[in-house]
Amino acid sequence: MMIEPGELLAKINSPADLRQLPEDQLLQVCQELRQFIIDNVSIYGGHFGASLGVVEMTVALHYVFNTPYDQLVWDVGHQAYGHKILTGRRDQFHTNRKLNGLSGFPKRKESEYDAFGVGHSSTSISAALGMAVASQYKKEFDRHHIAVIGDGSMTAGMAFEALNHGGATDADLLVVLNDNCMSIDPNVGALKEYLTDITTSRTYNKVRDEIWNILGKISKFGPNAQQIASKVESGIKATLLKQSNLFESLKFRYFGPIDGHDVNHLASVLKDLKKIPGPKILHCVTVKGKGFALAEKEQTKWHAPGLFDKVTGEIYKVHHTTPQPPKYQDVFGHTLLEMAEQNPKIFGVTPAMPSGSSMNIMMKAMPDRALDVGIAEQHAVTFSAGLATQGLVPFCNIYSSFMQRAYDQVVHDVCLQNLHVVFTLDRAGFAGADGQTHHGNYDIAYMRCVPNMVVSSPMNEQELRNLMYTASQDGMGPFTIRYPRGEGVMPEWRTPLELIEVGKGRTVQEGEEVAILTIGHIGNYAVEVCKNLKLDGLRPGHYDMRFAKPLDEQLLHHIFQKYDKVVTVEDGCLQGGFGSAVLEFMVDHGYHVQVKRLGIPDTIVEHGSQLELHRLCGFDPDGIERTVRELIDVHVRV
Amino acid sequence: MMIEPGELLAKINSPADLRQLPEDQLLQVCQELRQFIIDNVSIYGGHFGASLGVVEMTVALHYVFNTPYDQLVWDVGHQAYGHKILTGRRDQFHTNRKLNGLSGFPKRKESEYDAFGVGHSSTSISAALGMAVASQYKKEFDRHHIAVIGDGSMTAGMAFEALNHGGATDADLLVVLNDNCMSIDPNVGALKEYLTDITTSRTYNKVRDEIWNILGKISKFGPNAQQIASKVESGIKATLLKQSNLFESLKFRYFGPIDGHDVNHLASVLKDLKKIPGPKILHCVTVKGKGFALAEKEQTKWHAPGLFDKVTGEIYKVHHTTPQPPKYQDVFGHTLLEMAEQNPKIFGVTPAMPSGSSMNIMMKAMPDRALDVGIAEQHAVTFSAGLATQGLVPFCNIYSSFMQRAYDQVVHDVCLQNLHVVFTLDRAGFAGADGQTHHGNYDIAYMRCVPNMVVSSPMNEQELRNLMYTASQDGMGPFTIRYPRGEGVMPEWRTPLELIEVGKGRTVQEGEEVAILTIGHIGNYAVEVCKNLKLDGLRPGHYDMRFAKPLDEQLLHHIFQKYDKVVTVEDGCLQGGFGSAVLEFMVDHGYHVQVKRLGIPDTIVEHGSQLELHRLCGFDPDGIERTVRELIDVHVRV
Repeated sequence: MMIEPGELLAKINSPADLRQLPEDQLLQVCQELRQFIIDNVSIYGGHFGASLGVVEMTVALHYVFNTPYDQLVWDVGHQAYGHKILTGRRDQFHTNRKLNGLSGFPKRKESEYDAFGVGHSSTSISAALGMAVASQYKKEFDRHHIAVIGDGSMTAGMAFEALNHGGATDADLLVVLNDNCMSIDPNVGALKEYLTDITTSRTYNKVRDEIWNILGKISKFGPNAQQIASKVESGIKATLLKQSNLFESLKFRYFGPIDGHDVNHLASVLKDLKKIPGPKILHCVTVKGKGFALAEKEQTKWHAPGLFDKVTGEIYKVHHTTPQPPKYQDVFGHTLLEMAEQNPKIFGVTPAMPSGSSMNIMMKAMPDRALDVGIAEQHAVTFSAGLATQGLVPFCNIYSSFMQRAYDQVVHDVCLQNLHVVFTLDRAGFAGADGQTHHGNYDIAYMRCVPNMVVSSPMNEQELRNLMYTASQDGMGPFTIRYPRGEGVMPEWRTPLELIEVGKGRTVQEGEEVAILTIGHIGNYAVEVCKNLKLDGLRPGHYDMRFAKPLDEQLLHHIFQKYDKVVTVEDGCLQGGFGSAVLEFMVDHGYHVQVKRLGIPDTIVEHGSQLELHRLCGFDPDGIERTVRELIDVHVRV
Repeated sequence: MMIEPGELLAKINSPADLRQLPEDQLLQVCQELRQFIIDNVSIYGGHFGASLGVVEMTVALHYVFNTPYDQLVWDVGHQAYGHKILTGRRDQFHTNRKLNGLSGFPKRKESEYDAFGVGHSSTSISAALGMAVASQYKKEFDRHHIAVIGDGSMTAGMAFEALNHGGATDADLLVVLNDNCMSIDPNVGALKEYLTDITTSRTYNKVRDEIWNILGKISKFGPNAQQIASKVESGIKATLLKQSNLFESLKFRYFGPIDGHDVNHLASVLKDLKKIPGPKILHCVTVKGKGFALAEKEQTKWHAPGLFDKVTGEIYKVHHTTPQPPKYQDVFGHTLLEMAEQNPKIFGVTPAMPSGSSMNIMMKAMPDRALDVGIAEQHAVTFSAGLATQGLVPFCNIYSSFMQRAYDQVVHDVCLQNLHVVFTLDRAGFAGADGQTHHGNYDIAYMRCVPNMVVSSPMNEQELRNLMYTASQDGMGPFTIRYPRGEGVMPEWRTPLELIEVGKGRTVQEGEEVAILTIGHIGNYAVEVCKNLKLDGLRPGHYDMRFAKPLDEQLLHHIFQKYDKVVTVEDGCLQGGFGSAVLEFMVDHGYHVQVKRLGIPDTIVEHGSQLELHRLCGFDPDGIERTVRELIDVHVRV
């Protein structure tokens, strides 16, 4: 159901409508846009604080630039709700993040205003620079290219790579640095300290208004204004700014810091910047959650709070009368601390996901042994490798899809050296509402092809704990444990820590005719299926294989000797995944058995609930049951 | 055969021996070390210019620091020849890069002095920081950690990620910036310009000697010297250095630039730096190829020149009387230019490999359409995606093993958006003498699991040209073409450009009983094998499949219907690779055929010639022949 927009917002069906408004109405547009976001997210859920923080920036950018001809790339994109609402998607906005609804992130397929699809951090400068270089080549010299990137995203290496390239070009590129001192958790690292230094520097702040006043006046002088303005600007800077400046070092012209919540000033500054050629950066200071007091105060909590009462700020929680299973991430977080209390070698490493991974539990208890290294997956992995060379046992927790960004470091720095680093991959398999960019579909395939790597996945909380405990033992090497977003199945999950033999699966039930081989949490669907089938007197075998690598060869010999039909189920890609590993075993050992592999097919699967997506791909409980019944029927017919 | 070392060098069997020498003999050690490197590389080959450039740095570091307790990490590592020679490997040095000989890169298995295995760029700061944080945790406060990194490597994002983390710690970390303005090719980008600005700034250079003199004097004052020195140092800097400083922005204390070829000054500076706590950077200016005039002059050519006459500087070349097949990289380079001359959409992108990929051919002819973006694979891919959004057709050439560093960008920025970017992966399969870090073993596995991606590999020059031509056509999406290091098989390779249907293989010969399915250049081995077998009246089928994805299903149906034995051959990993894709097809379609997969097994394969490594893995011509004969024998026996 569509939420009613405010009076002005109701008339804005595209940025062209926005640009018809007089500048003195922008403030009201911002108020209405902010309210519309609050109204929607409180009822329908989604990311919250980030979009509130860029309301004024969003309005000013679309007001000043000629989008979509001018190209606007939002980094990460969970702050782009305002952008979506202003660019023709207001009336669909209540479908945000729902199956077949709008994506929670900008997406090229969804709108011509989404110049580049995003989801992972720090891609925006590279993409916008590519567009800017293409425009130069095509002689579209009137076209502007804007990347909006947070100070958190700026800590990832690829942003730096793009600055290094961009600064050496004369491409028309404006980087808007949205400095709110936050990733999902508070931003960390030297860059953050540096930006704080600038922002709080009095000399700097005194100077900036003067610069803008002068530039503003000069630009009215006529045709050569741009050149003159440019000269004056650099003259002023050279004289007055004693503060070292990282961005100027990289040959970007730096402007700011300015208040990112003053929409009219923003618009005026952006108009001036349109006239300044080459690569430049505008440093805007904003507050995440701006305009919703609780969200301003507790920014991590309100990053994506779930549904809430927009008046009282109460976040709705379902109240259960019986104990519920925990989230896997919390099992990870508590178990890591529990183990670290016993084993002084254990370290925790997270690239900017303390709350998302529940690494914050150990960080709070042992701040010297659990570290947030910033949005920096590459560094996180090689830093962990460095720790491991000294006999420590780092648990490096990275969402499955983000681990793609550190693949070379996994191969080159950990596996080739056979170092004992434990990779706990949260959000493996379908991530759900976050959609295609966040699905962790490929990890089994890309991890199992690398020598020395163990690839495992727990079926429940107890197995997660035991795999973590096993992975922490002396003598281990690279060890991957993947688990999904969301809850497990065991309300009483604090089971004693026990070793699991590496490469050993578990027989859930012996059976007849058909064997179901599962890996990970998805195995619980098979349990459900087996219960249903039992009602019809059917009894497939079910094996929780636990390891995609090394495979439990003994168990597989048993299975291939006993059954002539096998179903493999995984919440991961079919190409090269767990099922594929089972095929390799089968053919290498000369078995000839009918195998049906269930998993994620070779297409882009978008957003929806995890169960909806599993159903879409045919490996929800119904799909598994259907497959097993079909196999049995075939047999009967033969 | 061992080369005779100089008088002093002959006595240095470990850094401890070096540290016994008086400081005034260091110059001679450097001369002898440099000569020993020249003597060896001229006769046995290997990397040349990089190691010559760090002779003084190498001697000074081992002289001042207590290696291996103090931990020294060489970035990339092809500059570490001097390090190897000084750390007990002088007498094995003539085995460098040979099968079972020394590795051309530092390797933990090889020596306790190799604190971290390297090969790919920009890992050193992360690794050394991990070690430094571990030392803090273990209360080893007397332990020093040094990363030596080139200005080229500094452009890769992960170096920046490590600086961002490191700068916010108080870990004992010294980054030695080896600034020679070079990657393999001249370094590019804003950082390089920035470093040049510093190095040539007069104010800066006037100041630095004073700082060092004062610091030197103060440090003799007694126990509080370190604190005092530190205060004075920052005082001086704040007053005198008006130049903006990137590294200070990141909270690293910056020292330099100093002459990286003055060994005694280097030693004295390093001694001072030992006393300064926390993260710090020493900027050393060096000349790649130092001490060998021709190498100083033509630095790219002398990066790894092959064998040469050390007196005349003549690089030996084998002279052939008949035309020889070209290198695949040159076929790529010339063909790209040829196509770009016809098709204005084509762009070239290389991350710092103009000469290694032969992209320099197009860069020379069309400097605006073929760009070196620095050692920045991540940026290269997303920048290419940005170009593709504007209707251009970027050919992004990255060595297979380096492509691992841009995996997330391939998935997230190219494949999810189905953008038309062509990835040409040079050095796919075994790289040969460069060894484990440079082998491109995993690309088929990690690329084929991603939706929308085409994965192909040419059997010869003509197919490479035709695949490139096909990949450049309108309407294509993400397209991978992998080819090996070295020469092809067609002296007359400038064949007309022809389209290949995507996903269509080629029948090399129809046969009986056994079908050999190959992908890529390795298919030429199968041709050889078929010739041999023909002498015995055996005639296997041979199919050049060309595509690992999409597979030629029509051809596969034919093969599985006709043959009951299949051999797959690939110069790539067996786990999840091409052979695995064939198994998936077979089982999905209910065929039950004996399949033997040949390829790279699940172990770390080290360095050696490509043929030696293929033999080691059983897919050299002999291995393939043996496999085919065994399959036929089994049949006969049954």
